[in-house]
Amino acid sequence: MASKTGEQKRMWGGRFSESTDELVQRFNASVDFDRRLALHDLAGSVAHATMLGETGILTQDEAAQIIAGLKNLKQEVEAGTFEWRVDLEDVHMNLEHALTERIGPIGGKLHTARSRNDQVATDFRLWLRDETHALIGLLREVQGALVAAAERHLGLIMPGYTHLQVAQPVLFSHHLLAYYEMFARDEGRLTDSLKRLNISPLGAGALAGTGFPIDRARTAQLLGFEGVARNSLDAVSDRDFAVEFLAAASLIMMHLSRLSEELILWSSQEFGFVTLPDSHTTGSSIMPQKKNPDVSELTRGKTGRVYGHLLGLLTTLKGLPLAYNKDLQEDKEGVFDTADTLRVCLTLTADLLPKLVPNASRMREAAGRAYSNATDLADYLARQGLPFREAHEVVGKLVARALREGKDLQELTLAEMRAACALIGEEVFEVLRLESVVNARSSYGGTALDAVRAQLAAAKARLEGQG
Amino acid sequence: MASKTGEQKRMWGGRFSESTDELVQRFNASVDFDRRLALHDLAGSVAHATMLGETGILTQDEAAQIIAGLKNLKQEVEAGTFEWRVDLEDVHMNLEHALTERIGPIGGKLHTARSRNDQVATDFRLWLRDETHALIGLLREVQGALVAAAERHLGLIMPGYTHLQVAQPVLFSHHLLAYYEMFARDEGRLTDSLKRLNISPLGAGALAGTGFPIDRARTAQLLGFEGVARNSLDAVSDRDFAVEFLAAASLIMMHLSRLSEELILWSSQEFGFVTLPDSHTTGSSIMPQKKNPDVSELTRGKTGRVYGHLLGLLTTLKGLPLAYNKDLQEDKEGVFDTADTLRVCLTLTADLLPKLVPNASRMREAAGRAYSNATDLADYLARQGLPFREAHEVVGKLVARALREGKDLQELTLAEMRAACALIGEEVFEVLRLESVVNARSSYGGTALDAVRAQLAAAKARLEGQG
Amino acid sequence: MASKTGEQKRMWGGRFSESTDELVQRFNASVDFDRRLALHDLAGSVAHATMLGETGILTQDEAAQIIAGLKNLKQEVEAGTFEWRVDLEDVHMNLEHALTERIGPIGGKLHTARSRNDQVATDFRLWLRDETHALIGLLREVQGALVAAAERHLGLIMPGYTHLQVAQPVLFSHHLLAYYEMFARDEGRLTDSLKRLNISPLGAGALAGTGFPIDRARTAQLLGFEGVARNSLDAVSDRDFAVEFLAAASLIMMHLSRLSEELILWSSQEFGFVTLPDSHTTGSSIMPQKKNPDVSELTRGKTGRVYGHLLGLLTTLKGLPLAYNKDLQEDKEGVFDTADTLRVCLTLTADLLPKLVPNASRMREAAGRAYSNATDLADYLARQGLPFREAHEVVGKLVARALREGKDLQELTLAEMRAACALIGEEVFEVLRLESVVNARSSYGGTALDAVRAQLAAAKARLEGQG
Amino acid sequence: MASKTGEQKRMWGGRFSESTDELVQRFNASVDFDRRLALHDLAGSVAHATMLGETGILTQDEAAQIIAGLKNLKQEVEAGTFEWRVDLEDVHMNLEHALTERIGPIGGKLHTARSRNDQVATDFRLWLRDETHALIGLLREVQGALVAAAERHLGLIMPGYTHLQVAQPVLFSHHLLAYYEMFARDEGRLTDSLKRLNISPLGAGALAGTGFPIDRARTAQLLGFEGVARNSLDAVSDRDFAVEFLAAASLIMMHLSRLSEELILWSSQEFGFVTLPDSHTTGSSIMPQKKNPDVSELTRGKTGRVYGHLLGLLTTLKGLPLAYNKDLQEDKEGVFDTADTLRVCLTLTADLLPKLVPNASRMREAAGRAYSNATDLADYLARQGLPFREAHEVVGKLVARALREGKDLQELTLAEMRAACALIGEEVFEVLRLESVVNARSSYGGTALDAVRAQLAAAKARLEGQG
Repeated sequence: MASKTGEQKRMWGGRFSESTDELVQRFNASVDFDRRLALHDLAGSVAHATMLGETGILTQDEAAQIIAGLKNLKQEVEAGTFEWRVDLEDVHMNLEHALTERIGPIGGKLHTARSRNDQVATDFRLWLRDETHALIGLLREVQGALVAAAERHLGLIMPGYTHLQVAQPVLFSHHLLAYYEMFARDEGRLTDSLKRLNISPLGAGALAGTGFPIDRARTAQLLGFEGVARNSLDAVSDRDFAVEFLAAASLIMMHLSRLSEELILWSSQEFGFVTLPDSHTTGSSIMPQKKNPDVSELTRGKTGRVYGHLLGLLTTLKGLPLAYNKDLQEDKEGVFDTADTLRVCLTLTADLLPKLVPNASRMREAAGRAYSNATDLADYLARQGLPFREAHEVVGKLVARALREGKDLQELTLAEMRAACALIGEEVFEVLRLESVVNARSSYGGTALDAVRAQLAAAKARLEGQG
Repeated sequence: MASKTGEQKRMWGGRFSESTDELVQRFNASVDFDRRLALHDLAGSVAHATMLGETGILTQDEAAQIIAGLKNLKQEVEAGTFEWRVDLEDVHMNLEHALTERIGPIGGKLHTARSRNDQVATDFRLWLRDETHALIGLLREVQGALVAAAERHLGLIMPGYTHLQVAQPVLFSHHLLAYYEMFARDEGRLTDSLKRLNISPLGAGALAGTGFPIDRARTAQLLGFEGVARNSLDAVSDRDFAVEFLAAASLIMMHLSRLSEELILWSSQEFGFVTLPDSHTTGSSIMPQKKNPDVSELTRGKTGRVYGHLLGLLTTLKGLPLAYNKDLQEDKEGVFDTADTLRVCLTLTADLLPKLVPNASRMREAAGRAYSNATDLADYLARQGLPFREAHEVVGKLVARALREGKDLQELTLAEMRAACALIGEEVFEVLRLESVVNARSSYGGTALDAVRAQLAAAKARLEGQG
Repeated sequence: MASKTGEQKRMWGGRFSESTDELVQRFNASVDFDRRLALHDLAGSVAHATMLGETGILTQDEAAQIIAGLKNLKQEVEAGTFEWRVDLEDVHMNLEHALTERIGPIGGKLHTARSRNDQVATDFRLWLRDETHALIGLLREVQGALVAAAERHLGLIMPGYTHLQVAQPVLFSHHLLAYYEMFARDEGRLTDSLKRLNISPLGAGALAGTGFPIDRARTAQLLGFEGVARNSLDAVSDRDFAVEFLAAASLIMMHLSRLSEELILWSSQEFGFVTLPDSHTTGSSIMPQKKNPDVSELTRGKTGRVYGHLLGLLTTLKGLPLAYNKDLQEDKEGVFDTADTLRVCLTLTADLLPKLVPNASRMREAAGRAYSNATDLADYLARQGLPFREAHEVVGKLVARALREGKDLQELTLAEMRAACALIGEEVFEVLRLESVVNARSSYGGTALDAVRAQLAAAKARLEGQG
Repeated sequence: MASKTGEQKRMWGGRFSESTDELVQRFNASVDFDRRLALHDLAGSVAHATMLGETGILTQDEAAQIIAGLKNLKQEVEAGTFEWRVDLEDVHMNLEHALTERIGPIGGKLHTARSRNDQVATDFRLWLRDETHALIGLLREVQGALVAAAERHLGLIMPGYTHLQVAQPVLFSHHLLAYYEMFARDEGRLTDSLKRLNISPLGAGALAGTGFPIDRARTAQLLGFEGVARNSLDAVSDRDFAVEFLAAASLIMMHLSRLSEELILWSSQEFGFVTLPDSHTTGSSIMPQKKNPDVSELTRGKTGRVYGHLLGLLTTLKGLPLAYNKDLQEDKEGVFDTADTLRVCLTLTADLLPKLVPNASRMREAAGRAYSNATDLADYLARQGLPFREAHEVVGKLVARALREGKDLQELTLAEMRAACALIGEEVFEVLRLESVVNARSSYGGTALDAVRAQLAAAKARLEGQG
């Protein structure tokens, strides 16, 4: 990281007699990461300059020159030719310095009625707003992929688990749609967060507002903000929106980690429920037969990183007095990394789901195991009038007997069953059949084919309706 | 913790030949903490029984007997006479067992078409819904207290800080209203969370729904839920609502920690800005003169506890396969403790604010220190047409000179100032006056008296409007 | 929580004119949890009084009376008859107040040359020292149980996994001993922590030491401390030892969560590798056939709680100025809960391991699956002189062929194998046999029977040596 | 990130028919960050090749060729000319591929008896060992700087605080030496961690050891490890050392955050206790007079980042089954960032301390404020024989009186004092003098000049002794 400290006069350096130590400069500088905000910084500056011109704080001509200069800088940034300098600290100083180099001292007027404190808050909100919209789009892609997979595999029966023990058979589609619900909630949370995120801090100044007759509503409008921050002290020290994003992101990662865990389990030799696509697995450097679910493992593993960013920022904010403190500079890297992590994890999940190949016979076989129809026998007895707790007791004994004899429940004879409870009739064998068991659960949200079909239809409607 | 394991037949014990180790029983049991859900569990059971009667799953008479029994239990619980037993594991088993003891085997029918998995999710949501409403109320009390304090002390000038260095003078009321904004956002987050919280999982069964012709919409309606969970697998394994609550709570604690930090600073001998009420401070066992801001310190310190609960639950949920896993039992204690912590911290904050006695002269004196009017001089020069960056440079030099001479800026002579920049005129002394400096910042959200008055009016209107 | 604030004169109340609000009192009070330190507080007081008598700060007679009084209190506390009062705030005030009630005003002399700040630090360290020793003992019990299980099941082959894909067969004992290593490291960390924990803060006073001619080395010696804290300001504000404990505890829980995850997987119907004892599993309220690994799930789930306590305390300590701040009162509950959690989780793990029933045939069958001998073929080729990367390539092709033909590698004919690489000879079939594969890995720490036997012997020796 | 996937044959690709999606490749690839391990990877390879030659697994000539090739690669890496390729995934594959390109197929033999799983664990431990030693060195520099500052400013009196209220006067040097103790403990923790860190996993293979007659003790010796990991499954899945490092780092940051908080407070206008060097502060873009303690604020803020990394890794490791899982790839970035953060924060702290300019008169004046000698009056009374609690009460009343009259304690007349307690004599005025108050606290570790001098001497001796 070559810097030219000695030669450069720092822009805020009037008061200082000593030269800043190079390490301190690098430590304080944020340009290595906050230059990611460059386009949003320029957009904010264009809006600010426009307003300065409109309100007469600058002349129309000054404003026009500044805006033209900013647009040229935008091209440089987009082309990747802009040269970032650590000695100019941050994205704001770099761009303003370049502006003044390009258009002369008039560039210095851009900072009228503005401070880096409200500027960086503006940039960060604009950037995160774009990112939030992008992630909402990706969440919808994942939801769409889940719906499509649920539709494609409708009818396929797999074991439903509690405590990772086979509990009751469910439809594979039903299981997939559980994740649809999770990601739909995630989308709801991100959407709600926009209410608090999409608010303009621009014009709050360093902390206390400004004496120039600025029009904050105008810059907010130009930048697409839905409101103007009502209190300047709060505006420059508020990072709630970043925490709220990280919390929503942590929940998304938590959901992805659960899905990943299941994919890893299902693609193990022991489960053998699904085959993951070659594209999302990798081999081993030493074990040629391995087909490792690396993408799912990494997704699960990256959950830690995102939780860490959430806790990191909460920790940083704890106990800070008002208004701006340099600690706040620590707000960005974790959020950037989180957004990147979510983007890639959601993209790969949306990409993976259509390529998932379920092994229907393995799933079905496993679903019929482990007395997964025992509850149905208990429900059957309850329907015959036995108090549920007694029914439960009867079934427990029948299961114990079947276990001892190495049989499934439906392999007991009617006589054997009636010995435990005389209420049992011939129809019990239909009750115990796998399809019957699944389709019996026809309550709203249940796993019966019709119930799942209804869920599917509703999910599609919601996805389209929200489009 | 005396238990009578040996004598008691565990309700799910049919299948087991060995007696459960007592320690295991205690380890698994949740009744020590989940009995806090007792009233919500009973309310859920009444709704469930009502629906079972209405749909004919139970007879009307059976339903009526059960409901009467539940109401009696409610009285016992409210009176504190209900005897909780660890050997009955959890709140659900305790209450159901007692019901059957009181009304006979018919009590066993209550569990028809229900599982503990959907039951506990229902109870927890009902409880957290009540708690969320209570906290919204407390947040509004704190906002009200801030508004009242801001109104009471309107006009009082204090230093505004950045980097804990005196930056620009602000109104004390402006500073207080910054916290109003934070707590208003907190209220918004809690309100938004209700969309996802106030959804009924009841009827999801163990994981897959039920074969009984239940009416989930009816129980949801009876319990005041705004919707019915659409997927049974998700319904029993979803704890997003608890995480969302903990995340919102973490932000509330973060805001309280910032306010507490400031109160601690302000009440130090060095700042001397406020006197805290005796009621919220304590003495020392060895230093008789001490008046310690214990309440504020504890509030700040308890931030860690709430962050910890957030991370704890996120960690617990990471990588869990569907559907219910016993790990989920770990969802409650942290949430309970968080709600308790928020309740007491918010109550004490609302109680403290009206008793805060600002030391106007100390604040004002501090506000005039440290060249807090330097920005105004720069702005003044910019208004005279000097590019802002040059103005900044000029002021830097004047500050350096004043520093060397041990003077404030306004103590320099006009000639001395003009030596640095000929654009300076006589009116500069008015510009540099403390009230001028404050009132100059009249931009929307700024610290000028009129701007703060407008914030105050808007804040009051919002509080009333939301009432 | 009935309290009698109005009637009670708070011990530090001389300076205050207002009565403390009851809620504040409850908020500030710690006696509900810190009374857990009562016996350590009394022990510390006995040592302090002894030293005060020996140094002549008190007369021998005064010291004797105080010590006698403290011993009586100890009996009350042990008998559970001591009455704790919230209005007396904390364990220290409660005990001192009771002492004075019992022995008269001379009780007030106990606090000479002492402050609650050094007192609580002393109590907490004494308590945590005991707890650390107890946990070291439990860690050794778990290690012993692992060694015993490894010895009992020596020879049993199971699949070794990477990425949860079958990789290479390993001995079950080898797998168990991996956990031995983890818990041995945990023991090492706790042992190391004692160096920093077992240091006496007593005599540091409120923050600055005392003017009484105390003998800190003497109280340290009486209390079994290995050293005396060198700096009084640090002594009262240091909680590193608590964080270090929580960090070590988090690693222990992480290890337990990994073991629990494996037990949950292994006891699933799909793996079917082990049967968990009835004592450590529970049934379902609705699915009679379930045998849920609740203890393992709860252990895994409680990992979150302990991580949360670690983060919570770190957060609380962040940015606190010296010396004592009330925030530090938040140091105990998380540590108490962590110690309790570790105790029960370690106890249940030590209890569970001997009862674990492996299903040898299922394990063995799974170990032979999935081309788990492919690496051995590659190694065989490398030993024939083929560069490893080429060998790897050859085996990859043979695996692909075998996969296509639905065969295991050893089911290919010699000719088929030689078609891929002419270096392959008849002895390849011996190489590919399951026992050969296991026993081939005879490098130090490897899975060959002899290597595992050596590990076992070393583990036993270490356990005994450390005894 | 230009990659040439299409053209490149992935090294483990034999089994795959589809081409890996580019995004997946980038997601899985770690070379962007793990190339930081390049030199340690090469060192590990040299040791491995040496051992392979010595044991006859490779011929001496083969080993020599490989080692020569590795040494050439080392030069390329050091010169910065080595070209890293994302399509080759990680540092290991990149270097091995380059080796084979340079020296031909014999390069492929280097991977004999090794897997990436033991290789990466080896590299990471070697790297972290170096980093740990470097950080120990920096901690010692900070300790040295504290000792030097304490020595330089010996005798300077400042207020000692509890609850941020002035409590008792202390020596500035005493306060600085409290931090010495913290960093000394940090050093102890890092040193202890080496016991568990400096252990060789090399030779554990993929998970189960190897069939080649390797000599693990020899490679361990060549690499400076103090022991050999005893269990291969544990060796490849253990990341305890990274967590232990992050936990120790979190404590270091916690200590730095406390020191930073104090520097920020002390350099505020309200405290005015110290002037920070220009080199460690920065100005404001809008407020020319500001001298912001940015370095201290950033250091405090970065605490969150390090806590986040600790929690992130703990989360990632939670519940992972043995042995290697791809989740473990998430172990490095947080550790790298933590080490970088510690290095710069410790360096800047060591650099800052000698430049700190205390304002002796401000400190002294503040130390005499707020009845900071009240405890001394109570102690004086206790020495006259009054039970401590009564003495405390008397002083409380005198303080209340002095407060009412706007006086310090020593400004009351003897008669006024004696009115409260007849035991008070003329010598009380000497007792209440600031220097007397400080020097009274002569207990071991106390703030009296002689006690601090002793601490200083001991601290210097420890620093030298450990050198």
